Formats: sequence, C-alpha cells, structure tokens
Amino acid sequence: MLNITILAVGKIKEESFLDLILEYLKRLKPYASIKIEELKAESFNIATKNKAKVIEGERLLNYLKRFPDSKIILLDEAGNNYSSGEFANLINNENCHFIFVIAGSLGFSDQVKSKIKSSLTLSKMTFTHEMARVILLEQIYRAVTIIKNKPYHY
Amino acid sequence: MLNITILAVGKIKEESFLDLILEYLKRLKPYASIKIEELKAESFNIATKNKAKVIEGERLLNYLKRFPDSKIILLDEAGNNYSSGEFANLINNENCHFIFVIAGSLGFSDQVKSKIKSSLTLSKMTFTHEMARVILLEQIYRAVTIIKNKPYHY
Repeated sequence: MLNITILAVGKIKEESFLDLILEYLKRLKPYASIKIEELKAESFNIATKNKAKVIEGERLLNYLKRFPDSKIILLDEAGNNYSSGEFANLINNENCHFIFVIAGSLGFSDQVKSKIKSSLTLSKMTFTHEMARVILLEQIYRAVTIIKNKPYHY
Repeated sequence: MLNITILAVGKIKEESFLDLILEYLKRLKPYASIKIEELKAESFNIATKNKAKVIEGERLLNYLKRFPDSKIILLDEAGNNYSSGEFANLINNENCHFIFVIAGSLGFSDQVKSKIKSSLTLSKMTFTHEMARVILLEQIYRAVTIIKNKPYHY
C-alpha cells in the first residue's frame, strides 16, 4: 500500500475544498495510507512577511527532520513538471514513505528550498494552497488508478 | 468588463465542485461577465466511444459557429502552457469575447482540434473536466486580481 504524508502550512478554510479533500481521501482509502499534517501558518503583515516565511520554514524543517529516510518532495512552481503517468511512476513504490510538502500563501523560505532538493510543480500556473492540496490528492488518486489499471471514475 | 464564456460538455455532478464554481463566479461578478454553457455529454461504452466523441465535437462546433468573431480557446493537454501572469495578459482585452472550451471525459474529436487552433493547457497533468472548470475559473479570478492589481484573497 502506498504510504504518503501531505505536510502543509495552514488549514483549509473553505468547506467545499474540505469536502473534496475528504472525497479523495475516501476513494484512496483502499489503496494508500494518506496522512495529512497541518502546521500552523504564521500571521503576517507586509513588514513581517519575510520573517513569517522563515518561521514557517523552520516549522517544516523541524517536522521533516524526524523522517530522514522518507522521500520528501516540495510542491513548488519552479519544480519538476510531471505528466500524470510520470507522477504515477514516481510514487509507485510501496516501500517508500513519501512526504509532499505544500507551503502556505507565502511560499517556501530559501532555507527550505536549499535543504530539500526534490520538487514537483502541478502547473506553470499559480494555485492557492487549498487548490494545490485538492489537485495533489486528485493526482494521487489518478496515479493509483494508473498503477492498479482501474478505470478512472469521472 | 471582461466577457468570457465557458463552453463545456457535460454537467458538474459533485456538489463540492459546484460550490467552488459558484464561489468563483460570485467573486468574479464585479469584474467579468462569465457565462457557463453546458452541452449534453453523449453516453457511451467501449464500442461507441469514438462515435460519442465525434457527436460531442459536432455539438461544440455547432454552438461555436454562432460566434465567428469570438476568440475561441480549447483547454487541451497539448495546448500552450501559460503562467498565471501570461494568462492574465491573454485575457486582458475587454473588447474581445473569449470562449474557453472544456471537453467531456472523452476529450476533443479530431474535427474540433483541426478547426480550432488556439489552445491552452492548465497543466502537464491530466485533470477531470470538473476540476478543469474550477481551475479555469480560479485562474480567471487570479487574472482579474493581476489586471486590477488587487490583493488575492488566499
């Protein structure tokens, strides 16, 4: 069974996004163990924006250091561009624990980007972190249907 | 005011997707006239798949021929890759009526692809048509915030 953690900064507020997330988690249940970990987003204003980003980065790195053997992948606009098939190949390893990391609205600090070299972009377009979480889960579900050769339920 | 039609094959069934679509339409209301036109999706099985795709394509072309002066853009995996900023530039023309066309789960027929040359891809990844509609609306809203220099509400 696939073993995936989604580590995110901030909570999902919009109920419709929450519903979609729960729907994909339900569909994924027979095929993957998916854990969602939410770290606190730092409140900020224009003056404290960079400081908040650094603090959120420290929180992420602090969490991640407990998993030295996991495959950690940042969701980053400058990341690698995978097709759904290539993404399925990437995660098709039941012996590996994957951690996908989604930044808050401030993005990743330089410290995070320099420590973690693996990254993935969902699109050349920018999405909100809420949308990114839904798209990631949908792509994990799509990957499972590709790996298991199941028809995808549109 | 931006003038955009989203022409899609098939209805949105999942309520959470509908809620998100309504949310973005509400946010866009002061800045853009957005019309959503849904054409009937053809039911199909493995044997009738191609025929259904051709019929859906005819429905799309039939609708589109009433708009010879509009800028028609297919949402297609093989389409042009825009960043959110480039997409904002693309649609930043209040004198132009844009029609974004989203295929059903069968994709576009060859006939549609050979008649309409402008296309746009949301991602190298494949999305369901429901997800594509939400992402397109979110990107139109993001484009408006870029054009109007408004802060984006995450």
